[in-house]
Formats: sequence, C-alpha cells, structure tokens
Amino acid sequence: MKRRYFMTGAAAGLAGAAASSFPKPAISQGLMEWRMVTAWPKGLPGVGSGAQRLADRITALSGGKLRVKLFAAGELVPGLQCFDAVSNGTAELGHDAAYYHLSKSEACAFFCAFPWGLTCSEQNGWIEYGGGQALWDELYAPFNLQGFLAGNTGTQMFGWFRKEINTVDDLKGLKYRAPGNNAKIMTKLGAAVISLPGGEIFPALQSGALDAAEWIGPYNDLSLGFYQVAKYYYSPGFHEPSTAFQLLVNKQKYEALPTELKDVIRIASQAANDDVFAEYTANNGTSLATLVTKHEVQVRSLSRDILMAMGNATNEILIDIMDKGGIVRKVAESYIAYRNSVIPWTRVGEQTFVNARLLPFPFGVKS
Amino acid sequence: MKRRYFMTGAAAGLAGAAASSFPKPAISQGLMEWRMVTAWPKGLPGVGSGAQRLADRITALSGGKLRVKLFAAGELVPGLQCFDAVSNGTAELGHDAAYYHLSKSEACAFFCAFPWGLTCSEQNGWIEYGGGQALWDELYAPFNLQGFLAGNTGTQMFGWFRKEINTVDDLKGLKYRAPGNNAKIMTKLGAAVISLPGGEIFPALQSGALDAAEWIGPYNDLSLGFYQVAKYYYSPGFHEPSTAFQLLVNKQKYEALPTELKDVIRIASQAANDDVFAEYTANNGTSLATLVTKHEVQVRSLSRDILMAMGNATNEILIDIMDKGGIVRKVAESYIAYRNSVIPWTRVGEQTFVNARLLPFPFGVKS
Repeated sequence: MKRRYFMTGAAAGLAGAAASSFPKPAISQGLMEWRMVTAWPKGLPGVGSGAQRLADRITALSGGKLRVKLFAAGELVPGLQCFDAVSNGTAELGHDAAYYHLSKSEACAFFCAFPWGLTCSEQNGWIEYGGGQALWDELYAPFNLQGFLAGNTGTQMFGWFRKEINTVDDLKGLKYRAPGNNAKIMTKLGAAVISLPGGEIFPALQSGALDAAEWIGPYNDLSLGFYQVAKYYYSPGFHEPSTAFQLLVNKQKYEALPTELKDVIRIASQAANDDVFAEYTANNGTSLATLVTKHEVQVRSLSRDILMAMGNATNEILIDIMDKGGIVRKVAESYIAYRNSVIPWTRVGEQTFVNARLLPFPFGVKS
Repeated sequence: MKRRYFMTGAAAGLAGAAASSFPKPAISQGLMEWRMVTAWPKGLPGVGSGAQRLADRITALSGGKLRVKLFAAGELVPGLQCFDAVSNGTAELGHDAAYYHLSKSEACAFFCAFPWGLTCSEQNGWIEYGGGQALWDELYAPFNLQGFLAGNTGTQMFGWFRKEINTVDDLKGLKYRAPGNNAKIMTKLGAAVISLPGGEIFPALQSGALDAAEWIGPYNDLSLGFYQVAKYYYSPGFHEPSTAFQLLVNKQKYEALPTELKDVIRIASQAANDDVFAEYTANNGTSLATLVTKHEVQVRSLSRDILMAMGNATNEILIDIMDKGGIVRKVAESYIAYRNSVIPWTRVGEQTFVNARLLPFPFGVKS
C-alpha cells in the first residue's frame, strides 16, 4: 500500500469547494454533528466501506446524539492530511493509516505496519494488552490527537512483477514502486524505487516505466486490474505483515465528551478493528482464487537469499530509527520486546497448526 | 478446553439459591435489567474477564437503559446450561462456547471450533463475510436464540503429556482427557479417552489416573499449574485451531428491542470478539515464556504420522456429521467450501510471512 494515492491536484481543488458547503459541527438540543475525514476514495472496498460503517455505527450507538458524516479523500481535505485536519480541529475524526505520517514521527510506523514486525492478531495484542496503547497516547498527545485501532488489511503482498526475481542481483536497478520504510529497504538492496500514487501504477507497469509495484493484497489488487500488466505476484509482504488503520480523534474534543460518547467511539472503533479484517480475510480468499484460476496469475515466494537481505536491511533501518531516541526509541523498544515475547507463541500455536494443515489428508471428502 | 468444567453438585445447588435472590428483569422508566449467564467461573482470565467487560460495555453503551448483570457459572444456572437458560428466557443473555451444545446440533461445532478447521481470523471471515452468520441464524432460530461472535482463544494447545509420544502406537491405551470431537478422534486412534471437569485434571495427572490432558493454552494453563505434573506440552492444537465464544441472546426479547439497543448488543459483541483474542494473544506470549524458562516445560510438536492419522480420523467424523443432512450438512458444506477458499490465501499471505520471519536475521540488535 500506499501514500500519495490521492494527492492529485483535482482532489486538492475539490477540498476547498467541499469545505465551504458543509456546516461546522453544531450542538442543538444536545445533538452534535462530527466530521470524519478519511484517506480513502468513496466506495473503496475494505477500508473505505469499513470507515463508512464505523461512522454509521457511532451515529447509531449514540442514538443520534453524535452524528458522524464521512468525507472521502479530497472532499474536505486531501487524503494524506487527516492527521493535521483532526489535530487542528478542521475535522473531529479521521480514518487513515498511521504510517502516512512518518514525517510527524518515525514511531507512527509501529502503530500501523513495520517490516518483519507483527501480524494482525499480534499487533492487536500489543496495542490492547501489551502496553502499546499507552505509548500511542503518549506519542499523539502533543499533536492533540487520540488514536484507536480501527481495522486491518492483514498481511499484504510484496507486489506485482513483470518478470521473476530469484536473486538479490535481480533487484539491482529494478524499477519498483514502494513507499515508506519499504522504499528505504529496497533502495539499500539496489532497486530504483519510484514513488507513485496508486492510480498511476497500472499505466506505469503497462508502459514499462515500472518493472514492479506493491499495493495491498488480492481483494483490492484484483479491482485495480494489475494482473493484466504483470503476471508474477510475490509474497510474503514482509514489509507490511499487517497494516492497521487508525481512528483519529481530536483529543480536546474527545475529552470534552460525556463518558457515554467516549465509550461509543472507543467500542465502535474496536468493533471496526474486527470487522474490517474479517472483510479482507474472506474476500482475499475469493479474490486470490479469481486471480489464479481466471487470470492465470503466477504466485511466487521470494527466495531465502532475498528475504535474508531484506531482513538485514530492515535491521539497519530499525537501528537508525532507535538512534533517534526519546519517544521513538521508547516505542521501538516496547515493540521489539513484545515481538520477542509473542513470536515463540505464534510459532508454537497458530503457525504450527497452519503448517500441519497442509498435510495431504482429505477434509469433507468421502474416500 | 472443556465441557463439564463446572458441572459440580455445589454449583447446581448454588444456582437455586442465587436464582431466588435476584429480581426478574424489570422495565421501569424505560430502564431494563438483563441477566447474562456464563459458562465461566468468576474471575477466569481471558474469557471470564472478557464476558464481564462485554456486560459492562452493553450497560455503558446503552447509557444505562439496558443494564446487564453477569452471573458466573453456577450462580444462576450451571455453566453448561446457558443455551437452555437463554432459550427459555431464564436469562436474556449468555456467554459460552457453541460446541458445548453438540447434543442440540452437531452443527454447533462449526460456530466455535472444528478439528483441522479455521483459525480465528478465518473463522471471523466466514461468520462475518462468508455466509456463516446467516446459517448460524437459521440454526439457532428454532431454539429462540440469536448468536453473535464474542471472543476467541486463538489456536489452543494439544495438551499436557507425562511422557513423549512419537508414533501412533504411543497413543494406544493412553489415558487422555478430551471432550467433544477431539474425544471421538482420539478414541478412533486407540486412546482411552476420559471425560473430566477441568478442575479435576491436575489431581488426575498427578495420581496417574490420566497420562495426558488438553485444556486451553499457555495463559489459562499456567494458572492451573499443569507444568507441575506433566512436562511435555504438545502442539498443534489441531482439534481447536481457534475457539470462538458466543454471545447468546433470547431471540424473542432481542427482536422486541428498539434498533438502538440491538445495535448496542451486536457492536459490543463484535468489539469483544477483538478484545478477548487480543488478551489471549498478548498473555499467551508471556505465559509460554514463563512455562519454558521458569518451569522448564518441554514444548513438542506432534509427529507427521500422528498428525496424518488425526487428519484422516477427523475426515471420518466430518463425513458422519455431513451424513446427518439438513441444516447440519448445509452448515458443514459452507464451512468446507469457505475453508477451501481461504486456506490458499492464508498460505500465501500470513503463513508465508511467519515462516520467513524465522530466518536468522537480527531485529533491533546492533551488529
């Protein structure tokens, strides 16, 4: 996935027009209307529809006392300005991904997706029961923000490639579209990393301006049609082992709410955290089947040598991040300690199970 | 885990006393009080604390209009009678595990845990976006029940063994404590399966009345002290690749609620589905570390031969279940089709990632 998907001039222009046509939040007879800005285009499956459900549920749970109006990217502010817009009160709520805001703090990545980091269930464990939420609160307080988990894509794919890559040498000079920490890693490995909005990936792959590109996973990738211009679909998405979405709340306004409405926001957000991941999981299954059987996509795994090189490059980046000190180091240390604690459990528990499940016994088939 | 953990005479006696000391649900000034019976003893970590949080959240989200009072197992009805109690209106809500009720329908297992079936995220995908909820509604309607997902343990452990097991022959005559479908599978493999309440496992392992026993996973197992009487801890918990908890709602009373309170129950339950699994994930990590480093527990994997035999035995059981026809077959067919669709995605996505993550590169360690 993506930064810059929606940073078009058109969107920026639209934003100005839209802002003037919606009323400011108002309280009358105890009724409030809050705005939720998002990083998502209208109707984007998964995260986009999930954000809309979250807005609707806050409205419903509050019995209409807190009505939430959702704005697609560019309608009120450009998609990547949710952080600033909620921080300064232009909107009371935002739904996006924390790693869009590494320029605010490198620590944001840990609350969203970090290369070779945590899967979705592990990430939820860290934030909710491993000390992550308290650190997140500490990180966001100076920005006048309160963050909550509000959805996840699960493990992403490493992306679409026009030709096979087998060795680290095959990455040299490869024109690969990637954002954020993945861009840093691939640059270290010699790729010619290109930053492109999601909407421009397809033509760039088609023309040869790109050799390869990462986006999200089967559910969203199928709809963008990448299989038409690149046949090799690589895993694992080590760069985004899970990608958490966040609900941003203007902290000052959140703290002024009665307890009941605070509960509504927090619990609706936690429900969205379950809901969005379930939508991705079910639909990634059917979409992958379509890609493979109907569109003859070749699913490939990165080789051990390439993965080791990516792991070592990730560690260099992580050490640089920790060297920034302060809250960034504090968050990274908590994340690393939790990761060291949870991986042995994942390995013994779900991982051993899913590996064993591949044994060739029948399931629901009469012999 | 468990059936029969709480079926003690003491609990049954307590139930009568408790029932008379709590008022019937009442509506006064638009305020309602509902009872939530549970299968859990007071204060049981994970599922027990999760059920309490769910009760408190329904109360909070409703602004006190729907106050939920939680009853531990045996306080109002015995732990395994939640299904009947909510069905007949003794309580309006229940929190337990659907596979306690295979005597009502074999299909209940699919909404909770089925051997070699779905992981937690896959299960959520099936219920929420793969057609599972509609089938669940159809299955429960004749019982005057509405079921919702309300928590998950994640993958369980196959259990505690006093000695190593390496071949299928080692299972012959093994005195192993297991309930439900796992009991059927192990019986097929020649084990001497014993059904025992959870509270009696420890002394039975100690005296040699049991050679082995399964319960839940590190978080709950550590607190019961099994490591003191059995040193080998086996995975994978193929019999419960994830174990979903359910919120049971009396259907007639649910349907009489205003939309707002229906939303409260449904969304609070979905939030609990996220919340409980996160609690298990984080605490299984730290508990496993304690078991291994402090108590010198030996973690072992079942051998390929044993796993294949268990897979084949599971298929025989599954075929028997499908042969019952009707709604049982319909649910099983949906579950199997979804499983066939989602496994290739899990394999390409998260599974490839977690396997690659075991490569020996450093993470957060200066070289």
